[in-house]
Amino acid sequence: MTMEVYAVFPDKIAQRKHIEAEVKGHTANSRRCLPCASDGGRNRVSSWGGAESSLQGEDQSLAGAVSPHTSGGPEEDMELYLDLRSQPCRSVFLFARAVGIPFEFKLVDLSKGQQYTEEFGDISAVRKVPVMKDGGFVLTESTSILKYLVQKHRALVKDHWFPEDLQQRARVNEYLSWQHLNLRAHGSKVFLLKALFPVVMGYEVAQEKMEAAVEDLNQSLRLLEEKFLQSRAFLIGEKISLADLVAIVEIMQPVGVGVDVFGGRPRLAAWRDRVKDAIGERLFDEGHEEVMKTSGLGEEIKSSSQLGEFALKFRKLFS
Amino acid sequence: MTMEVYAVFPDKIAQRKHIEAEVKGHTANSRRCLPCASDGGRNRVSSWGGAESSLQGEDQSLAGAVSPHTSGGPEEDMELYLDLRSQPCRSVFLFARAVGIPFEFKLVDLSKGQQYTEEFGDISAVRKVPVMKDGGFVLTESTSILKYLVQKHRALVKDHWFPEDLQQRARVNEYLSWQHLNLRAHGSKVFLLKALFPVVMGYEVAQEKMEAAVEDLNQSLRLLEEKFLQSRAFLIGEKISLADLVAIVEIMQPVGVGVDVFGGRPRLAAWRDRVKDAIGERLFDEGHEEVMKTSGLGEEIKSSSQLGEFALKFRKLFS
Repeated sequence: MTMEVYAVFPDKIAQRKHIEAEVKGHTANSRRCLPCASDGGRNRVSSWGGAESSLQGEDQSLAGAVSPHTSGGPEEDMELYLDLRSQPCRSVFLFARAVGIPFEFKLVDLSKGQQYTEEFGDISAVRKVPVMKDGGFVLTESTSILKYLVQKHRALVKDHWFPEDLQQRARVNEYLSWQHLNLRAHGSKVFLLKALFPVVMGYEVAQEKMEAAVEDLNQSLRLLEEKFLQSRAFLIGEKISLADLVAIVEIMQPVGVGVDVFGGRPRLAAWRDRVKDAIGERLFDEGHEEVMKTSGLGEEIKSSSQLGEFALKFRKLFS
Repeated sequence: MTMEVYAVFPDKIAQRKHIEAEVKGHTANSRRCLPCASDGGRNRVSSWGGAESSLQGEDQSLAGAVSPHTSGGPEEDMELYLDLRSQPCRSVFLFARAVGIPFEFKLVDLSKGQQYTEEFGDISAVRKVPVMKDGGFVLTESTSILKYLVQKHRALVKDHWFPEDLQQRARVNEYLSWQHLNLRAHGSKVFLLKALFPVVMGYEVAQEKMEAAVEDLNQSLRLLEEKFLQSRAFLIGEKISLADLVAIVEIMQPVGVGVDVFGGRPRLAAWRDRVKDAIGERLFDEGHEEVMKTSGLGEEIKSSSQLGEFALKFRKLFS
């Protein structure tokens, strides 16, 4: 199954250094450790979760027993098509890893436009990541993937992630709906205008547009604090839920391009630290490693065969 | 409780003619019929559902027995803050009415900027409709309200609306997530540019922008057909679900301003007819009456004290 990755995305064999580094301590025969290609096991693009995995995050209390759904061989692991520079990919990645759901990591490099390949189109007509493939069942949209994982792995996922309680669940759903056209839309826009617009278009975006985008982001952050977080430990209550993961990955996108989101927002910074603690700082940092070093991204995009495609989209989005 | 509506929105007493007309046959003492203000019962702004209600829609088979959750007096009815010219308000309205969940209709007239009043701000800091108030529990975001209603009224709501089945539920969640930044964003944009932009800004939008917006809408409609509807009767399967309601209300928005969405799309037109049949044509038309006569909307907005606020928002959105 791993070979499929190389067939679809042949230039990715030498990437994902952080995952390479992480897998060193993992035994090659682990049933959740996927077979490697032709490099003696050093250049894996696969990842996994599982209660026994050393990669699971520091707060092991978040993971329970291994679900019966995942007790088969590695051939039963679901596949996640991801690029960790994408926020929704990170929320799915962090959740699966934090609770210990095994998966095969299929890299779709957005900076190379691999979402536009014929091969990826066969997997998803929407041409966006993340995509989950669980047996023959293909699912898009990060929030629906997260809820699918909660429902499928009930024995593994503690209630606080997506509470059964009527009002608590409604609060998680409310956040997951609200964020699309607010924190997600506004954080993404600032990221795209700062990190990618100059590379793709060849000039800086007008100052007025940048200021308006930052103002929208500030408005979303204000609502995040005042409506959702309030004086609680996490967005929905005293324990972490899907809402916190979906929120933090969006916030880290503008942070990655130098926006000082947490400056002057001590309540938000303290919440971020609690999210880190809850899933484990090591896992948190692993998930955000690539978005925190976006300096190389410009060069990757410039040399992409899809540069024209990007420029068309940017003109439409921002003109 | 009904007085609250008049206190918050005093100029709405004489509105909602279609609801006034509908309530005539309803006895004033019905426990779900709310007390009227000072007009002898003719000018209600309240509405309701319930298996015994004549307003329930033609396909009564969609409603079951009255849920134990709703068996109290009228003081226990939840409140829905709505403007039926808003798509998400319509999905909540149509669902509650189709399955027979009692509620009190609280009108928030968006064309008058009533979402910006201090009173409405006390109900929801987000300043958007719909808002649900169930006892002391206030919930925003239409899709979370819909799921709350499904979970609370399990005995009343048949499984097909939001199936318990893992994959079927995932498909509904996938659609409800996808639509935010696709059909909803694109349909709304065409509606705003066609119906409101000229009134608010004083000039027509540039042809190029309108064409780009229509192209985006067409792309969303193509995905709606090819990815979601396919050759099924409804978006998720052979029966109606929340996804169909959330989709149809978005499509009817550009239809209301003269965009020929169904022309050349017989599969989509047949699906719309099945949605109408499933909830009842009378209810469908009632929910869409106001958006199908947007000709008067311009005048309402022009005379609104919030015209400046609208202009600021439009400049930001579309410049």
